[in-house]
Amino acid sequence: MNFDEIIALDKADPLAQKRLEFDLPVNTIYLDGNSLGALPKSVKSKVAEVVSQQWGNDLIKSWNSHNWIDLPIRVGEKIAPIIGAAKGQVICCDSISVNLFKLLCSALTLNSERTVVLSTKDNFPTDLYMVQGLSDLLGPDLCQLQMVEEQDIEQSLNESVAVLLLTQVNFRTGNLLDMAKLTKLAHEKGILVIWDLAHSAGALSVELDKCEADFAVGCGYKYLNGGPGSPAFVYVAKRHQYAIKQPLSGWMGHSKPFAFNPEYQAASNINQFQCGTPSVISMSVLDAALDVWQDVDMLQIRTKSVELAEVFLQLIQGNECLHDLLLCSPKLAEQRGSQLAFSHHDAFAICQALIEKGVVADFRAPNIIRFGFTPLYTSFEDVWRAVTTLTNIVESGFYKEQRFNITLKVT
Amino acid sequence: MNFDEIIALDKADPLAQKRLEFDLPVNTIYLDGNSLGALPKSVKSKVAEVVSQQWGNDLIKSWNSHNWIDLPIRVGEKIAPIIGAAKGQVICCDSISVNLFKLLCSALTLNSERTVVLSTKDNFPTDLYMVQGLSDLLGPDLCQLQMVEEQDIEQSLNESVAVLLLTQVNFRTGNLLDMAKLTKLAHEKGILVIWDLAHSAGALSVELDKCEADFAVGCGYKYLNGGPGSPAFVYVAKRHQYAIKQPLSGWMGHSKPFAFNPEYQAASNINQFQCGTPSVISMSVLDAALDVWQDVDMLQIRTKSVELAEVFLQLIQGNECLHDLLLCSPKLAEQRGSQLAFSHHDAFAICQALIEKGVVADFRAPNIIRFGFTPLYTSFEDVWRAVTTLTNIVESGFYKEQRFNITLKVT
Repeated sequence: MNFDEIIALDKADPLAQKRLEFDLPVNTIYLDGNSLGALPKSVKSKVAEVVSQQWGNDLIKSWNSHNWIDLPIRVGEKIAPIIGAAKGQVICCDSISVNLFKLLCSALTLNSERTVVLSTKDNFPTDLYMVQGLSDLLGPDLCQLQMVEEQDIEQSLNESVAVLLLTQVNFRTGNLLDMAKLTKLAHEKGILVIWDLAHSAGALSVELDKCEADFAVGCGYKYLNGGPGSPAFVYVAKRHQYAIKQPLSGWMGHSKPFAFNPEYQAASNINQFQCGTPSVISMSVLDAALDVWQDVDMLQIRTKSVELAEVFLQLIQGNECLHDLLLCSPKLAEQRGSQLAFSHHDAFAICQALIEKGVVADFRAPNIIRFGFTPLYTSFEDVWRAVTTLTNIVESGFYKEQRFNITLKVT
Repeated sequence: MNFDEIIALDKADPLAQKRLEFDLPVNTIYLDGNSLGALPKSVKSKVAEVVSQQWGNDLIKSWNSHNWIDLPIRVGEKIAPIIGAAKGQVICCDSISVNLFKLLCSALTLNSERTVVLSTKDNFPTDLYMVQGLSDLLGPDLCQLQMVEEQDIEQSLNESVAVLLLTQVNFRTGNLLDMAKLTKLAHEKGILVIWDLAHSAGALSVELDKCEADFAVGCGYKYLNGGPGSPAFVYVAKRHQYAIKQPLSGWMGHSKPFAFNPEYQAASNINQFQCGTPSVISMSVLDAALDVWQDVDMLQIRTKSVELAEVFLQLIQGNECLHDLLLCSPKLAEQRGSQLAFSHHDAFAICQALIEKGVVADFRAPNIIRFGFTPLYTSFEDVWRAVTTLTNIVESGFYKEQRFNITLKVT
């Protein structure tokens, strides 16, 4: 594959114009949108307006006049089509971790005859930690975490399992779990499923409703480009909303928050999953960032994501000097999310050298480099230039010279 | 009291210059900083820098280069002197509601022989709701809420009470509880105390350490001027930090979050009270807003707060036509926070009419108007003009004409 073919791919890309809606840093190839999404241009004026006009000038009146009070629902409804959810099932609030706690309690209550929360050993740690925290609180008679390898999920589904907690796309390897199949198998055993969409919302075509998913969480700061620490979201299938009660029963989840009644009465819809006062500034940023998605077809996102990764892989594998980079992601594109992970004994040094040369990838302990592909703003030319830079770094041994200067401070 | 005397008070006010650090709306007298604080001028450039430079340009590298990772601690340490806390005890994270859940669980675990959480009937509802949610989750054998009137707190302290949950300043009446006395009385009965500082942090001289407080929460968006839905904070006395474990055990509370270990190991310090990824944009706004406090003496804040309220009260009470406004706040200044509440059978209409005439106060169901005094930016002239406007509205009956046009949508 040569540079002309790469340019032809960019020319044929139906999403190519989307890149213009982002403020990308100069002289940088950003392949880390799976950790923190890039800045949509519309955000800058929006945040200035929210701060100066809505907060500074209109002050408390903005709860009504700028409808701050409905922000969590409004933002949730913008996320819904991106994850295949019909209306009334998604709300924006808190963090993934806090939202997982709400859903774990809800699901365990629905399945109160059972105690096991089944998850995978290499799930993103916070998912496992939240189960451990709940298990310590309730005791093992009510909640216990069982961790298995990803390939052992299916055979571990049995009638002792109350909740299956899975991240659709593995944060290290990018391995993509089959949501439709696993949800169906779990339901056959009476198991409720919580899907963590951190690495899939905005990265591929998620179909929560079609898969008859029960619950999901996801974050705003990766592929949804909502900014660092952007609020997260919760999905609760309509059929479960009347039956459950989540324990983080803050005033915003009350059926009538402004009645200031001392008795909690949960809202009977998705509003119940709110807890405290919404984070208006951060949520408004996400709100603006989500406008980029209005005319986007998620199948186009997936198609381009696969192409970007396939081209990257082809360029890497066609280059002898990069053979020490061992693919940790699945070989088949349909089994991957929107990233490629490689192990290398000098992964950390290579990653730092790449960043120094303007190619931003990221490192995950102990020895993995991740390259994320964000179809909205990653071009095929980016992929070409990233591999060229990587080749230069490895061929020249530049990364070895650098390694002694590096402070190990990784996020 | 005449207008010249009012102007003299402003001239003698050592905090008068602080008002210049805020962007206050024109033609508005803002007496609702107890609900949403005004915009500090420094915030506008800060948020633009965080969005454009830190996020937009530096992207993922900012976790290190702009030290996002330490924001919760950095902001916590800026709040600490405002609430009388020595270092290492305050962290910024989540909302008051979520933080109350962490503290309630922590306190109940420390006092595991007991089950009662004692609070007041007219505590801010979310505080009560969070106890109710926890009680539903754990069952009444482990947690039960007992609500009493404020005046009955002392006589309700007994050996069955595990946790005393109090808001220092009542959100409706502004009644100020005696933190030193109540904490001491509670400790004598083996009760742990959680103080909600929503209406006191930044409004008066809070002395958590001196009172030997156990735990506290507070919000960033009232007197701390951190913007709508600004993140909250948690205080945990040093002596309790080693003994407790809070159940919302997200990855940011782990002793080594970036080791990505599947087993949760709580940080042994205040960091444990973090849960998910911090809300960088909102927290940076609060960070900038807190710089206003650097050279502020909290005793000066309290002195001015009392004076503002006393002048307001004197002007109201000296005006015959305002005699239908009945003071719901304590008569004695030392028993009040930084607000005055009045009941009136037409409270809602009067409040709306005031807002229409540029005086922003707020309404609390069923019949209360609250006027908040924020010593950093409320002037004595504001107080004078507010009472003049109120007098005109009541004398003219203007508020009665308005009442039929008002949509009941209050926050």
